[in-house]
Amino acid sequence: MPIAVSMGDPSGIGCEIAIKAWHEIKNEDYADFIIFGDYDAMIDCAKAINIETPLLRLESPLQRFDYSKSIGIYEPIKLKSSPIFGIPNSANASAIINFIESATNSVTNGECSAICTLPISKAPLYEAGFKHPGHTEFVASICENVNYNGVRGPVMMLMIDGLKVALATIHTPLSNVSKILTHDLIEKIIIATYESLKRDFAINNPKIAILGLNPHAGESGMIGKEEQEIINPICNKLRQNGIDCTDALPADSAFSSFNRTKYDAYIAMYHDQGLIPIKALDFWGGVNVTLGLPIIRTSPDHGTGYEIAGKNIANPQSFINALKTAHLMAQNRHMYG
Amino acid sequence: MPIAVSMGDPSGIGCEIAIKAWHEIKNEDYADFIIFGDYDAMIDCAKAINIETPLLRLESPLQRFDYSKSIGIYEPIKLKSSPIFGIPNSANASAIINFIESATNSVTNGECSAICTLPISKAPLYEAGFKHPGHTEFVASICENVNYNGVRGPVMMLMIDGLKVALATIHTPLSNVSKILTHDLIEKIIIATYESLKRDFAINNPKIAILGLNPHAGESGMIGKEEQEIINPICNKLRQNGIDCTDALPADSAFSSFNRTKYDAYIAMYHDQGLIPIKALDFWGGVNVTLGLPIIRTSPDHGTGYEIAGKNIANPQSFINALKTAHLMAQNRHMYG
Repeated sequence: MPIAVSMGDPSGIGCEIAIKAWHEIKNEDYADFIIFGDYDAMIDCAKAINIETPLLRLESPLQRFDYSKSIGIYEPIKLKSSPIFGIPNSANASAIINFIESATNSVTNGECSAICTLPISKAPLYEAGFKHPGHTEFVASICENVNYNGVRGPVMMLMIDGLKVALATIHTPLSNVSKILTHDLIEKIIIATYESLKRDFAINNPKIAILGLNPHAGESGMIGKEEQEIINPICNKLRQNGIDCTDALPADSAFSSFNRTKYDAYIAMYHDQGLIPIKALDFWGGVNVTLGLPIIRTSPDHGTGYEIAGKNIANPQSFINALKTAHLMAQNRHMYG
Repeated sequence: MPIAVSMGDPSGIGCEIAIKAWHEIKNEDYADFIIFGDYDAMIDCAKAINIETPLLRLESPLQRFDYSKSIGIYEPIKLKSSPIFGIPNSANASAIINFIESATNSVTNGECSAICTLPISKAPLYEAGFKHPGHTEFVASICENVNYNGVRGPVMMLMIDGLKVALATIHTPLSNVSKILTHDLIEKIIIATYESLKRDFAINNPKIAILGLNPHAGESGMIGKEEQEIINPICNKLRQNGIDCTDALPADSAFSSFNRTKYDAYIAMYHDQGLIPIKALDFWGGVNVTLGLPIIRTSPDHGTGYEIAGKNIANPQSFINALKTAHLMAQNRHMYG
């Protein structure tokens, strides 16, 4: 089964990185993808960046073809307005949203193996009435009624080669992080991560590093109490239930090169704690994975890039890694059963 | 002039890394250092780790000798008790404190060029009545009456090759960071960093990256207001005064490899924001520099290492870099006049 790729915002760099990625990886097995999006937008993009690309209009996501010979595009709906690079247009919001819904549904109904979402920008979608904080929550809501045998997220995990970091909180003002870090939230994040490492990444007995919230992980309560009062009791309970996790570690040294070889994943308490090491170590290669869903979902770890759209300078590496990761996760989950 | 090295806690790894560093760099000009500490502790350490080392007892910090032929030790006071590796002893606290004071004074009175402090542990010093949060504040207090033509810190900066990060707050519980980030504090940190980059690192027109506190630097106020209300107005004012600094940047992408080539230093709003990238990129090589002092002070970016003390497995790289940095800063400050 192919990976379903939602086009994202066609006035951004999404179509360009899809085209570049396909040329780079077309002979790899993780190049088996089809795009849910506007056919003409892909034609126009290939022309704009002057990369000759065989594009195939699909009648259905089930239509099979040689993925190494062309990029298949399934168009559940047309864009209302021809996209202009660099200028988002809320007139196209409903089609962009439909691409994500159709791609997600193609996975829940077994036509595709996983979804990989190209970037959207929230502002033009909000103008058109979109209600979700982002892609992650939207995809989760689409499949909320799909049966799922696991702790339900969504949990956002970022990964590069050799480092996976799941986030306990995401777009929260820093001064509020402590207030929303509840026992239940942290427990859910750890278990969803543990389950995904086993099932989607085929790690039998995953070892998980839990980060402290405060400098030096609170230094025995002298620099903050959250570690002693909330985080460590959960870690202790989960260890008794067979999950191999640490207590809260000092976050500064946790990401050293020798520590990174020790742990299969990290749980970060807030956005920048997790994303700083990912982007410092490998800015271009990061993949965003949503854990705790009935389906596999990945995406490149960057935005729409309006300022460079249509100029043939966008870097497809993150999207290539997102496809590779989705392919691997889908294979593992299938074998896990 | 030599660099004054305070021995730190002799039951930790300090003496060992001094001995190993000297053997590795004795022919370099930044190996011109003398140790303020207990002579017998150095003898005993060289024996314990079985590294034959020429040690020279100095009558005064002014005594000159060939730094490539032996390690000079000036003993302002003896330890009360023979140190045992791995077991701190508060009976030695007053001597350890004296080593730091004597070394600092040797710089303020012109006998030495800079101070480089080997690690102490606060707990045994507190038992003996030590009142300072750490080395940084103690050294600052010793030279608080020394004339200084600049914005006075102390400001803690961590550096590795290609990355310098100064901290606006240090050992503050994360949920309190926002409360203590005042206009005056941030302004002081930025100016002290700017002055040091010019004077101590010979960078004529330093470019300084200022980090946001919140995810995405607050995303125009949607994820926190500190950037709009406090940080950016200061940055704007300082730019008008000729300091080339950014507005608050999203901290996650700020440390990407291409950004690191753009900025001479970063200002982090809290401990882990600054230390995570330093330690993820180079765990062993980090140097701690105190800015905003009448004297140059550096130290290795690690602790006493009690658990590995006396076993000949401590890594001297951070201390070597701390000596190299102190030497370079002293030369630059001298030329700056």
